[in-house]
Amino acid sequence: MQAEGLEQQTGALTLALSAKDVSTFLSALENTHPADIADWFVNLENEDKLTALSYFDRDWAAQLIEYVTGQDVEDMFRFYDEETQRAILQRLQDDDRVDVLQDIEPGFRATLIALLPAAERGTTETLLEFPEETAGGRMTTSFASVKENRTVRQAVKNLRRLHHDSETLSRIFVTNEQNQLIGEVRLRDLAFARRSTLISEIVEPNVPSIDAHADQEEAARMIARYDVLALPVVDDKGRILGIITHDDAIEILEEESTEDIEKAAGISGEQSEDSYLNTSVATHFKRRVLWVLGLAFAGLLSGYVLLSFEGVLGSTFLLALYMPMIVAAGGNTGGQAATMVIRALSLGELKPGSLVAVMAKELSVGILVGGVIATAIMAEIFIFQPDAMEGTQISLSLFAVVVGCSLLLQVATSTLIGATLPLAAKSMKLDPAVIASPAITTIVDVSGLFIYFTFARLFLGI
Amino acid sequence: MQAEGLEQQTGALTLALSAKDVSTFLSALENTHPADIADWFVNLENEDKLTALSYFDRDWAAQLIEYVTGQDVEDMFRFYDEETQRAILQRLQDDDRVDVLQDIEPGFRATLIALLPAAERGTTETLLEFPEETAGGRMTTSFASVKENRTVRQAVKNLRRLHHDSETLSRIFVTNEQNQLIGEVRLRDLAFARRSTLISEIVEPNVPSIDAHADQEEAARMIARYDVLALPVVDDKGRILGIITHDDAIEILEEESTEDIEKAAGISGEQSEDSYLNTSVATHFKRRVLWVLGLAFAGLLSGYVLLSFEGVLGSTFLLALYMPMIVAAGGNTGGQAATMVIRALSLGELKPGSLVAVMAKELSVGILVGGVIATAIMAEIFIFQPDAMEGTQISLSLFAVVVGCSLLLQVATSTLIGATLPLAAKSMKLDPAVIASPAITTIVDVSGLFIYFTFARLFLGI
Repeated sequence: MQAEGLEQQTGALTLALSAKDVSTFLSALENTHPADIADWFVNLENEDKLTALSYFDRDWAAQLIEYVTGQDVEDMFRFYDEETQRAILQRLQDDDRVDVLQDIEPGFRATLIALLPAAERGTTETLLEFPEETAGGRMTTSFASVKENRTVRQAVKNLRRLHHDSETLSRIFVTNEQNQLIGEVRLRDLAFARRSTLISEIVEPNVPSIDAHADQEEAARMIARYDVLALPVVDDKGRILGIITHDDAIEILEEESTEDIEKAAGISGEQSEDSYLNTSVATHFKRRVLWVLGLAFAGLLSGYVLLSFEGVLGSTFLLALYMPMIVAAGGNTGGQAATMVIRALSLGELKPGSLVAVMAKELSVGILVGGVIATAIMAEIFIFQPDAMEGTQISLSLFAVVVGCSLLLQVATSTLIGATLPLAAKSMKLDPAVIASPAITTIVDVSGLFIYFTFARLFLGI
Repeated sequence: MQAEGLEQQTGALTLALSAKDVSTFLSALENTHPADIADWFVNLENEDKLTALSYFDRDWAAQLIEYVTGQDVEDMFRFYDEETQRAILQRLQDDDRVDVLQDIEPGFRATLIALLPAAERGTTETLLEFPEETAGGRMTTSFASVKENRTVRQAVKNLRRLHHDSETLSRIFVTNEQNQLIGEVRLRDLAFARRSTLISEIVEPNVPSIDAHADQEEAARMIARYDVLALPVVDDKGRILGIITHDDAIEILEEESTEDIEKAAGISGEQSEDSYLNTSVATHFKRRVLWVLGLAFAGLLSGYVLLSFEGVLGSTFLLALYMPMIVAAGGNTGGQAATMVIRALSLGELKPGSLVAVMAKELSVGILVGGVIATAIMAEIFIFQPDAMEGTQISLSLFAVVVGCSLLLQVATSTLIGATLPLAAKSMKLDPAVIASPAITTIVDVSGLFIYFTFARLFLGI
């Protein structure tokens, strides 16, 4: 089943749906992965969605709902009767169930939870108490564990009984009598060890674990870093509460990357659970307008700087030719520096303590980049504008020096500003990604105008 | 072993190293994860690195080298004698070995490969033939497979023999006599099935797979999408060649996110294998100077537009107050739109065919955002600049209308341009992320100046 076959499969679904041919529809489902069905489903017209829902049996609905997000989750549940709602909820793993319920408005969510048998209801409610962004809010409670003072024989017997409940058996966590995590054993080790061996004799200590209240991103980074299939989640006493699995780690890291990318562009608020096209214009609008509006007023500052240099600009209007470029060069290099530093912080390569090292590096880079651009633009002036200063008191060389020095200083300071602000945010316990590139651009727009016209006034005597 | 304990552990390593106390050093290693040791190691001074290398035994060196990147990999190999080099290479999984060798310059790489026994040398050379960015370049050849016409008994017997070679046994791939992938069985199914059952009776068909020449990002997206631990890689005849595992998927997706983030900021070339601080100033410089230099020359266009409106600006210099803001609002909204579309393309939510739907959505968002900002700034003019047009022929209302209309048109067109260019790039088979936000800013700087001064000329009659 490679990508090429995918369009054929969803095409068959569409045909069967419009022909209202249930049996062809169900057999087309058999050949398609639930993730692909979900993708096809969420892009249907509303009427077709309802028809499709009426064709799915409970098994399909449960499989599908794991891959559907946002409003579609709630719509699906509302379509089915109570019996089916319960069946769908029970068929889900507990972390997937919590994931799904988090997409549903609180009142209806409570109604759905009440349908569950007591044990599953309790687990679900406990998991829902952890904030969505924490390790606890992302974990599953179905994992394999054994006590250290059991023998291999007892452990195997217990695990066999729990077998079908465990999302992964490849790692089995070992706890002491207080249920504190002390290490792990592998299924393979159990298989090869003598049956009378104590678990404590074959346990591997030093298993990475994470506090339930830690940020989910930290959990995902640990899974990536230590190449583990599952990371145990513990409470403040070190007792194991659950595990976060590798597929959650991928999802979390993708969400965090999207968040960083959006913040860098000045897009505020939480990313929509829905895809780009399924997100409403109103939501898109709300997430974008704030920064743009704020920066528009901040941009007036540049305007005032410009107004204050009316005399300078008026006397040598050729300065206007290089003005947009000098200003923009600062925004571009500042944005680059901020991007590098924010990503390095996000990947854990930098700490706020690295400030001096970062500043030294960025100042060098800024001077090099600024030097190259200044040289290139000064050459442009001598080659393409040889007569620019004719009829004035100003020599062409002096004019070129003003443009060149401004570029160098603007690029060097902008690079420094771009690199420093995210580190400053981090050391104030803020997310460094709040330093959006447009904000840096707005700041260095002001400094660029100021540098340029001040140099012009000083060097050109205007 | 939670994050808090980490600094203690690496602190112990540093102390033991500076005291030249090998036995304490080795026991501190025991309590530390190789990923953390690698992080600690790469940040050492050169002299300390050599001392540390002399303390590691072959097992540690092999574990460590998996987590080290860039120049450090080559330096480590060069430090050890031939016997140790061979031992390290043999201890690595084949995909990790290829990964490590890709960080080493070709001449030395060939020397190292020649140290391997024939079988491993063959596999390594085959894997190295696939470009680094393809699924084939990222796969491991150690996976579990069985033929469909075997019985469960035969399958279990074969698997037991290969046991320790398989990175994952949780999914066992099923092939026909031509070695073509036809499905999978789970270890659990083998355990519960009757021993005389044929594999073809219990095989689950419709296993996602990927062509060896497909981009590694596509493989990673499939692993994320289908929640699989391992994705089989097949040749053009559908024969299974290897698998890509979940930990590779995480790494690939992180690399791709970094690449998208960097490209969006106008940072060119490949990301460094080294961390931000370990990357040289020269490399940072080379990756940033190109876009900035190109955009500086492109920025001259804005300068010429400005020059051409000298008369308009000269006669009503208050226009300068709102000029930077109008220009910047376009850059900000264009950048937002481009970011949304590039990310949606990258996550597979959009296809180039969605052009009309995207344009409709972005035009609506652009008009809303532009409308809000235009209204806010017009209010600002009436409230804070009531006397701005005193002593001129121009009415304040007309001036406010020029600023407002310019903002609305600039934001609406910039949003459209920002959203359309990445889709255009994609439909020309280019990476949409090449449409860096600074490039969009540079384009809409020109249109912003043109819109503003044209409106001023038309409405104000100057």
